[in-house]
Amino acid sequence: MLAANVDETLEIDREALFQLALRLGDTSLILGHRLSEWAGHAPILDEDIALSNLGLDLIGQARSFLTYAGEVEGRGRDEDQLAYMRNAPEYRNLLMVELPRGDFAFTMVRQFLFSAFQLPFYQQMMQSRDKTLAAIAAKAEKEMAYHLRHSSQWVVRLGDGTKESHERTQNALNSLWTYTGEMFETDASLKALIEAGIYCDPASIRETWNKSVDDVLQQATLTRPETGWMQSGALTGRHSEHLSHLLAEMQSVQRAYPGLKW
Amino acid sequence: MLAANVDETLEIDREALFQLALRLGDTSLILGHRLSEWAGHAPILDEDIALSNLGLDLIGQARSFLTYAGEVEGRGRDEDQLAYMRNAPEYRNLLMVELPRGDFAFTMVRQFLFSAFQLPFYQQMMQSRDKTLAAIAAKAEKEMAYHLRHSSQWVVRLGDGTKESHERTQNALNSLWTYTGEMFETDASLKALIEAGIYCDPASIRETWNKSVDDVLQQATLTRPETGWMQSGALTGRHSEHLSHLLAEMQSVQRAYPGLKW
Repeated sequence: MLAANVDETLEIDREALFQLALRLGDTSLILGHRLSEWAGHAPILDEDIALSNLGLDLIGQARSFLTYAGEVEGRGRDEDQLAYMRNAPEYRNLLMVELPRGDFAFTMVRQFLFSAFQLPFYQQMMQSRDKTLAAIAAKAEKEMAYHLRHSSQWVVRLGDGTKESHERTQNALNSLWTYTGEMFETDASLKALIEAGIYCDPASIRETWNKSVDDVLQQATLTRPETGWMQSGALTGRHSEHLSHLLAEMQSVQRAYPGLKW
Repeated sequence: MLAANVDETLEIDREALFQLALRLGDTSLILGHRLSEWAGHAPILDEDIALSNLGLDLIGQARSFLTYAGEVEGRGRDEDQLAYMRNAPEYRNLLMVELPRGDFAFTMVRQFLFSAFQLPFYQQMMQSRDKTLAAIAAKAEKEMAYHLRHSSQWVVRLGDGTKESHERTQNALNSLWTYTGEMFETDASLKALIEAGIYCDPASIRETWNKSVDDVLQQATLTRPETGWMQSGALTGRHSEHLSHLLAEMQSVQRAYPGLKW
């Protein structure tokens, strides 16, 4: 399976690649779920449709990454088993995406901070020596360009809006800021994948991300929070209690219909 | 506004046309909302994506019908004000669509019974002398053809599946049956619109609907319930308590962000 996708002369740690595919898939899955919670609750009908579409993009990405994770793992688990039959400590998503959807400003600020990373990230991942990851990234990159544009516009509109919308948006930014460090984190496994040309070095994305963030915050008349201590947990599966609640809901139907595929 | 859409020689009761547009828009809106509640909860990832897409189709239809309702009403209300700023007694949706989403079998049986009506209904509405309604119907007809195919396949799969899935599906059918009569209901206003060639006579759809239902139930090894007393309420705005709960949720954000359009 790997042979078709990765240069065989590389010494790839299959477990590290599996964990990477989970990290990418789980992050998209959980954020897609959080966006889908807006369905029927957005403040205007067009935005209801827009948020659902963003959520569908992310769930589609998750499906691709988790299918690949199952292939890499080689134990016969498909994307549904990986999405629905694991417990919280086995998830590798960024902590940022598991936070409750919050108010509309929180949702948009999160989408902005995340997309401002994901767009340049996928642009680099299109060059990955892992051809499957490169192909998924090529599709996702187009989607994230739209997510970034859409969420940037909203952050500006809300930040530079009424007094209340400005305050809500600044509060959201302050709450989310300590979760942004995790996107740039690496560990020994990821470093090995970076050296092998499979993962891209997130440090190389820092400057692009900073510029996107500063530009939008300035237009939105928002203040960039001080960067200090940062949350961490995705790489080791240490999650907030919010993930367990989300999974309990998300998995309840699958577990009630175990025979769905007969 | 009407002049462009409806033959002016007709004596159209503007209020009756407004109520019809609400009936069509509200029914799509509420069912779209119920489908969107599955986002992140469907038993398999593909079905999560599929149900969200069905929901988006319906919310798109609702948007078109409610925009038109606002134009017909002529009091300056747009689709967002109609969707979010009315109370339950002002909604004209079929009772069937406001019932809670229930289990997966319930959702699929409802979608099937509804789509089996909506497809031939929109096919006839494409001939409406109201050109706006005809145009919305032409787009919706394609969507409902897919909804009917998708839900039919699931009803067969669930009904002709395991003992448990069969029982759940038969129970769903039994619970929903008394709500099917309302699709065929008319009152004096609708009859006037039928005579004017604007609305289609639902009686003319009965045979097609019966045939779709009988075919699928037979393949699904399900028993068609006896037809007796039928629920009624959509035409007069008499709703179950479920609608109030749904609206409370759906409208909470809009009401928290009244200044969203600045």
